[in-house]
Amino acid sequence: MKESKLSSLKKLEIIVGGEHQAFATDLLDRAGVSGYTIINNLSGKGQHGYHEGHLMFNEDDVLIMIIAAVPDELVNPILQGFEPFYNEHSGVVFVTDIQVARMVKFQS
Amino acid sequence: MKESKLSSLKKLEIIVGGEHQAFATDLLDRAGVSGYTIINNLSGKGQHGYHEGHLMFNEDDVLIMIIAAVPDELVNPILQGFEPFYNEHSGVVFVTDIQVARMVKFQS
Amino acid sequence: MKESKLSSLKKLEIIVGGEHQAFATDLLDRAGVSGYTIINNLSGKGQHGYHEGHLMFNEDDVLIMIIAAVPDELVNPILQGFEPFYNEHSGVVFVTDIQVARMVKFQS
Repeated sequence: MKESKLSSLKKLEIIVGGEHQAFATDLLDRAGVSGYTIINNLSGKGQHGYHEGHLMFNEDDVLIMIIAAVPDELVNPILQGFEPFYNEHSGVVFVTDIQVARMVKFQS
Repeated sequence: MKESKLSSLKKLEIIVGGEHQAFATDLLDRAGVSGYTIINNLSGKGQHGYHEGHLMFNEDDVLIMIIAAVPDELVNPILQGFEPFYNEHSGVVFVTDIQVARMVKFQS
Repeated sequence: MKESKLSSLKKLEIIVGGEHQAFATDLLDRAGVSGYTIINNLSGKGQHGYHEGHLMFNEDDVLIMIIAAVPDELVNPILQGFEPFYNEHSGVVFVTDIQVARMVKFQS
């Protein structure tokens, strides 16, 4: 059996408030990441804990997770691009090593 | 404290149009993967980018992500099984190394 | 370009029936994990397969996935905490190595 062709990439899982979707996807577009998948209507509680009184998210916030698979060299530029955003808003980015099998139908 | 028992597996995250759910889960079933979890109502934009005019997904497509944890030796057969599908439809499979703690209640 | 600061953590993806959300998030809280994100309304089929008659989940169960990023040393205590739960209920925990870029706005 032949091996399926897999690409080693980084998966970015970007969790932000739903109102910031356009900002985040525009940033990905400008970085050259033109494909992503979005999970809508997540709920969440803050990374800094209810008990300490530092909430990153309130439990009622509508959050989204934007998932994109990118080459290694794009991870840092994308994270840098988000830094000014961090000063004003909350969120988190998970970076995971993955392998990707693409199923692409080119449309004419 | 004793260690919890963890199994090293591969996580497959299969993103396809919602209308192809039965095809994808049947393929998993036939490969011997009888358990999976599905995230419904994802939205997405194509891996090949809006700007280049090669859309993998349209923004209005209803996508699903099927998540399954499988032993290493099933990854390639499953990806091979999807190849004919790739010629007709779009989608992507992410493969990630994970460890799994099972919480299984056997029902009689 | 400076490097964005990333923390190496473990991502826990805890899949349980929706009716057990409070139990699972309380367990995380008590372990010191005060932040998490929840994907609601997953569907799933049992890890032990329809064909064998051992269903972990029924296809109609409403499942949730609770996602948390935790330091290595918390993984085992959390999994241990879930063990009594396993004896009564079904579910699964995926553990993945990730790197996390935090975007934290402290609120006064």
